[in-house]
Amino acid sequence: MALDPARAAVRAGVRRVLDEAALEPGTPVVVACSGGADSLALLAATVFESRAHGSGRGLHVVAATVDHGLQDGSAELAERVVAQAAGLGADETVAARVSVHSEGQGVEAAAREARYDVLAQVAQRWSAPLVLLGHTRDDQAETVLLGLTRGSGARSLAGMRRGFDVFARPLLDVTRAQTEAACRAEGLDYWEDPHNTDQRFTRARVRHRVLPILEAELGPGVAAALARTADQLTEDAQALDAYADAAFRAAATDEPAGAVGVRLDGLAGLPTAVRTRVLRRAALAAGCPGAELFRVHVQALDRLAADPDRAAKQVQLPGRVTARCGRDSLTFVTTPVGG
Amino acid sequence: MALDPARAAVRAGVRRVLDEAALEPGTPVVVACSGGADSLALLAATVFESRAHGSGRGLHVVAATVDHGLQDGSAELAERVVAQAAGLGADETVAARVSVHSEGQGVEAAAREARYDVLAQVAQRWSAPLVLLGHTRDDQAETVLLGLTRGSGARSLAGMRRGFDVFARPLLDVTRAQTEAACRAEGLDYWEDPHNTDQRFTRARVRHRVLPILEAELGPGVAAALARTADQLTEDAQALDAYADAAFRAAATDEPAGAVGVRLDGLAGLPTAVRTRVLRRAALAAGCPGAELFRVHVQALDRLAADPDRAAKQVQLPGRVTARCGRDSLTFVTTPVGG
Repeated sequence: MALDPARAAVRAGVRRVLDEAALEPGTPVVVACSGGADSLALLAATVFESRAHGSGRGLHVVAATVDHGLQDGSAELAERVVAQAAGLGADETVAARVSVHSEGQGVEAAAREARYDVLAQVAQRWSAPLVLLGHTRDDQAETVLLGLTRGSGARSLAGMRRGFDVFARPLLDVTRAQTEAACRAEGLDYWEDPHNTDQRFTRARVRHRVLPILEAELGPGVAAALARTADQLTEDAQALDAYADAAFRAAATDEPAGAVGVRLDGLAGLPTAVRTRVLRRAALAAGCPGAELFRVHVQALDRLAADPDRAAKQVQLPGRVTARCGRDSLTFVTTPVGG
Repeated sequence: MALDPARAAVRAGVRRVLDEAALEPGTPVVVACSGGADSLALLAATVFESRAHGSGRGLHVVAATVDHGLQDGSAELAERVVAQAAGLGADETVAARVSVHSEGQGVEAAAREARYDVLAQVAQRWSAPLVLLGHTRDDQAETVLLGLTRGSGARSLAGMRRGFDVFARPLLDVTRAQTEAACRAEGLDYWEDPHNTDQRFTRARVRHRVLPILEAELGPGVAAALARTADQLTEDAQALDAYADAAFRAAATDEPAGAVGVRLDGLAGLPTAVRTRVLRRAALAAGCPGAELFRVHVQALDRLAADPDRAAKQVQLPGRVTARCGRDSLTFVTTPVGG
């Protein structure tokens, strides 16, 4: 019997990540598992690939479920996912309960942060070098659209990374529909997160209202195009960040502790996109909170550095940081509280 | 009486472009005028600014209308726009009829190409160093969304440029609603292009169906965020293009006419985003048609250049161009027709 194509696509994604990781037999690999189609398909494929004849992998698959405690019955759901994961052949299962504190951010962002923290802890406890996440190409398209509508530049448009720290996302080339088809082919009964259809959540609105309209109006290739865009912008952002890192190192001046300086002749000749990134780095190094440092601030710094009458002028930045311009350099200092 | 804020915003956009251009009094400036709210508001503001007391500009305003001949009554419309433009105080008016040949491309793209050609001719005939176009921030947002859904990277996401050749777009920070309000404040009766509400046209669908849904679902700041994204990605694309141009010049080998070569050691150490741009430049220089050269082709070239067994391997590119790998360089040659 031919292998179901959706199942094959999920397995191919997992195989590529495991091939790249080149782990010793017996190494623990954590699979984050919510009970949704994406993570169940991911778990099934990981179990299969880590046992596959001839792969010689023999990895130790740890299925990890996070109970955010945000919905009624979330504890029962976690139990059900644990049972499913064991039934799928995971070597171990772990369910972790977290408390989500959403002060100062949305509940979505707080839940995500708590989830990544606990998954990193699980990886540490099992000495696992790899945590697999089930995000699909549709998740990627939604992330790009959300980033786009925030207008915050290439970095947020670049979407989710394929890997960072111990985390990897093997399914970014696989569609959500393929993970659902793979579950059906495996005979798996997947769970549909009520939050995913709860229109109060921005991402759910993108998924259920915005992307379908885009596909209907502009053609069915939109999600794939958004994901392709993310890949290209990731490369672009990496290149520009690397140039900016090098230019910042080369232009930085010696300053007393707590202050940061940039030589103006080190900024001259840089393209605008790199020069503004260097100025952003200097402001962050001086203690500006990244979440409050906007394009308008960086543009004010850029105008200051180019101002022929810049001497003694200054720009006030978030986090009590002041940028002052001398003849040859721009200096960032933090005003002490009460100072 | 206080100046209407929409009218002030339109004038400020025009003033900035005219300030930058720093033209001698009497210099002709062409304003492209379709009779829509955007271009009528642009023309009114240009006439005002070029006459403004104390500006010392005294420019010679030429209103240019292009009749694409695509709709019934387009000749009458052109006549009406000419009369409106004269009434608004344009020093001269010109109406040009073009034929739109849409072979090999959409009718929208063909009409745009014909329009820019004829506007450039008008500029040449009048020795005008500047042609003003009425695109608004909403047009920019639509362009970014269309580019995004094509998945073709930062360059197409970067939207419309603020200026190129003799063309400038003074209204990219002004909303369409502001141009309409400015027309009402001027007592101008503007024309609504039936194509703009004809849902067969992709841009019209973006304008009337996609953007409104985005604004309704994600908040009213979406169009502004898209335009801001375009500005940032323009800077990013310019920087990456500049690095790629320099790297291509440095890595190019001497080849017989018609062939293009790139030294592999000139590619080593470049970030992926720049390396792939260098490979794209080499392929274009060898004669690949830009419209047919996709990311998959460039990625194949990139794999070839990194392949340890690359010697004697080759990649077939559009336009009968073949890339062959030697020990130290990648060479692009065109196969003659029938060869």
